Amino acid sequence: MQSTSSLASLSLLDMLAGIKAAEFTALDVINACFDQIEQREPEVQAWQVRLTREQYLQQYEANQAFYEASLLQGLPLGVKDIIDTAEMPTEMGSAIHIGRQPVDDATCVALLKQAGAIVLGKTVTTEFAYFKPGATRNPADLTRTPGGSSSGSAAAVADNMVPMALGSQTAASVIRPAAYCGSVGYVGSRGEYSLRGGQPLAQSLDSLGLFSRDAADLLLLRSVLLRLPENTETIAAVKPEKVLVCPGSWLGEVSEDMTAALEKTADALQQAGVSVALLDAELAAEIGTLVEHHATIMAWEVCRNLAVESFSPELLSPQMKDLIDKGLAMPRASYLNSLQQVAVVGQKLAAQYPDVDAILTPAAPAIAPLAETGTGSPHMSRAWQAMGLPTVTLTGINDLTGVPLGLQLVGKVRQDDAVLANAAWVNQLTLG
Amino acid sequence: MQSTSSLASLSLLDMLAGIKAAEFTALDVINACFDQIEQREPEVQAWQVRLTREQYLQQYEANQAFYEASLLQGLPLGVKDIIDTAEMPTEMGSAIHIGRQPVDDATCVALLKQAGAIVLGKTVTTEFAYFKPGATRNPADLTRTPGGSSSGSAAAVADNMVPMALGSQTAASVIRPAAYCGSVGYVGSRGEYSLRGGQPLAQSLDSLGLFSRDAADLLLLRSVLLRLPENTETIAAVKPEKVLVCPGSWLGEVSEDMTAALEKTADALQQAGVSVALLDAELAAEIGTLVEHHATIMAWEVCRNLAVESFSPELLSPQMKDLIDKGLAMPRASYLNSLQQVAVVGQKLAAQYPDVDAILTPAAPAIAPLAETGTGSPHMSRAWQAMGLPTVTLTGINDLTGVPLGLQLVGKVRQDDAVLANAAWVNQLTLG
Repeated sequence: MQSTSSLASLSLLDMLAGIKAAEFTALDVINACFDQIEQREPEVQAWQVRLTREQYLQQYEANQAFYEASLLQGLPLGVKDIIDTAEMPTEMGSAIHIGRQPVDDATCVALLKQAGAIVLGKTVTTEFAYFKPGATRNPADLTRTPGGSSSGSAAAVADNMVPMALGSQTAASVIRPAAYCGSVGYVGSRGEYSLRGGQPLAQSLDSLGLFSRDAADLLLLRSVLLRLPENTETIAAVKPEKVLVCPGSWLGEVSEDMTAALEKTADALQQAGVSVALLDAELAAEIGTLVEHHATIMAWEVCRNLAVESFSPELLSPQMKDLIDKGLAMPRASYLNSLQQVAVVGQKLAAQYPDVDAILTPAAPAIAPLAETGTGSPHMSRAWQAMGLPTVTLTGINDLTGVPLGLQLVGKVRQDDAVLANAAWVNQLTLG
Repeated sequence: MQSTSSLASLSLLDMLAGIKAAEFTALDVINACFDQIEQREPEVQAWQVRLTREQYLQQYEANQAFYEASLLQGLPLGVKDIIDTAEMPTEMGSAIHIGRQPVDDATCVALLKQAGAIVLGKTVTTEFAYFKPGATRNPADLTRTPGGSSSGSAAAVADNMVPMALGSQTAASVIRPAAYCGSVGYVGSRGEYSLRGGQPLAQSLDSLGLFSRDAADLLLLRSVLLRLPENTETIAAVKPEKVLVCPGSWLGEVSEDMTAALEKTADALQQAGVSVALLDAELAAEIGTLVEHHATIMAWEVCRNLAVESFSPELLSPQMKDLIDKGLAMPRASYLNSLQQVAVVGQKLAAQYPDVDAILTPAAPAIAPLAETGTGSPHMSRAWQAMGLPTVTLTGINDLTGVPLGLQLVGKVRQDDAVLANAAWVNQLTLG
């Protein structure tokens, strides 16, 4: 019998396997998660609103037969507070929406509930999934930011409060907090999942995201979200054959630690028999131009999606007001040009490397900065996000003080299953 | 002073010009609209729920100074009942959502309200904007279908109940009912407008739609929805320089009447000095293959967006159940292949005709079929919708019995302003 705290730190698949093998029960896991929350939440502050242990157990016991027969066994799910839930408020990190109670669950929430997950609570988001930080602290170092905007989801999963959480990414909102906190963050290809009930920020950039502690878990949750046949037995890590390395310096400033982590991981892949090459410098430079084009598209679209909120500027953060003003002042030609450049570079990348499995690149510029400086730079994600590519963070690499240094694997559009299986394999290599 | 009934039939721009010139007041127009509704609604049944005249006037008078200073002067707007409104239920034409009351206005609704429109009511939609008809009848011939899914919006505008209405299109849900009823329907380029608060059906296909009685009106409403500078003075019809003709036979069966209307309009354009050519037959055949690819993408995505509803199959129509079953049984490879084919043909079309302003093609296979046969075939729209192109119906061409025969202009992606200005010009030509 495992100890309570080690139960809470298992991966979702290991939790499910242990329950199936009767090594422990779902209630043991649930109680272990609540033990962890009660111990850590006062400092980490990952939750905007959540069930108490008693409320959770009541919900579990009222439908125990359903949960015992279900795929996800009644295990707890965190939901970023930008995603609508019918039984808890969805406030989007904004003073404008305090107490806002949607009438429907978002589709992603409904599908995970139908598969046997229980929504433990709503996790802290930055204001409208943009830059103004929430209360959450980085569980790996409480003086540091967890990153944003899916701050609470990344922290809650990294800190073993829940085995799975939903997030969303428009710029770097999944990959960056996952990298900073040390959870596995996954951003779906654009268009891959229903975004019904998730509050949109920028229609050309928004993607659904998921957090877990093992990329293999995400293959299971992906099956639930896509209504594919779910089978925990057939989920397997897959060795990539060919990986490209893109140094973060093409996208923005990167720390020496991060560059060293990238090189170390590339070496490990090569030693394990993966073909590793550098991304063509000319193409890398073009991808680098997308950092700014992403910001342009985002500003144009955010000020239109958040039209209602922009009518109450006194309730918006200075960061959000700046973004809205930038979008409203922008010539339409700039926006259309940026959309065009993203399309051109995306097609070039796909055409130039048809046989490459994934791109290995930093998930963030460095370790998480100190909390008072904001949520960190989104530059390492903007270009990939603009192109709508699926991305997964790699975990297990820390700096000398034990704070995570996250890398990411960037996959091919709509081949999310492949990049998740590759990430699971690379993580076994780097953790092993 | 115009008669009450002629006031209600003016275009939005003519209403606004008349109010500005003090030829009549906004209240005169509003009352004329209610006169028309009270006379016609018992037969046409365009409205799912609506304000009474007294409620409307109360709302107008309570904020009269705001409306008098506003762009849209307090004039009435119809909103398809798939689009959320905070002050009226949004039931999506489904027994599952009777009485469903959203907490927020959709962004498009909020922007039009902020510009001075008043939501007169929610217009009838087919079930979840798919094929099961609502109660609405075609105002041009009550024995015929208004088309779907934006049935009530198309009928209410064609029948002079309101000068403007919101809709949405995933397959043919704006263009077809506009063609059948004789209003001007406009589908925005994919990604052009915020869809926040509109219930999604298929994320790769959904677009926002608008209805009016003159394409020039839609240029004004587009400015509101995009938060661009609004100026009724600078809106102008623009003569297209080069138009391609695509016979509907490439997309599906088309009536002789419709083919004659297409040829007559093409001739009129040519006589007016527009360069008119036939779409290349090989490319037209490739575009024809997108009809089926569109249906494939739609089935895959609908069964995932409507996951919650699919858990209550007893409350779904047979048509919707079939679509969901088709999507769930479909191999993912078919879906990915269809997405790929759409991208390839879309790129080919753009590359082959960089200097063409628009494609002229039937908006529907024929006049509206009899109501008991359903809402008509979506084949004339599927291919253009799959490619995400902006489309506008042309009005004013009727068959010998006076029932509308609608054509459409298909524009270039994200050049919605150009195709709207061209449609305004062509409509002046064909009506004149």
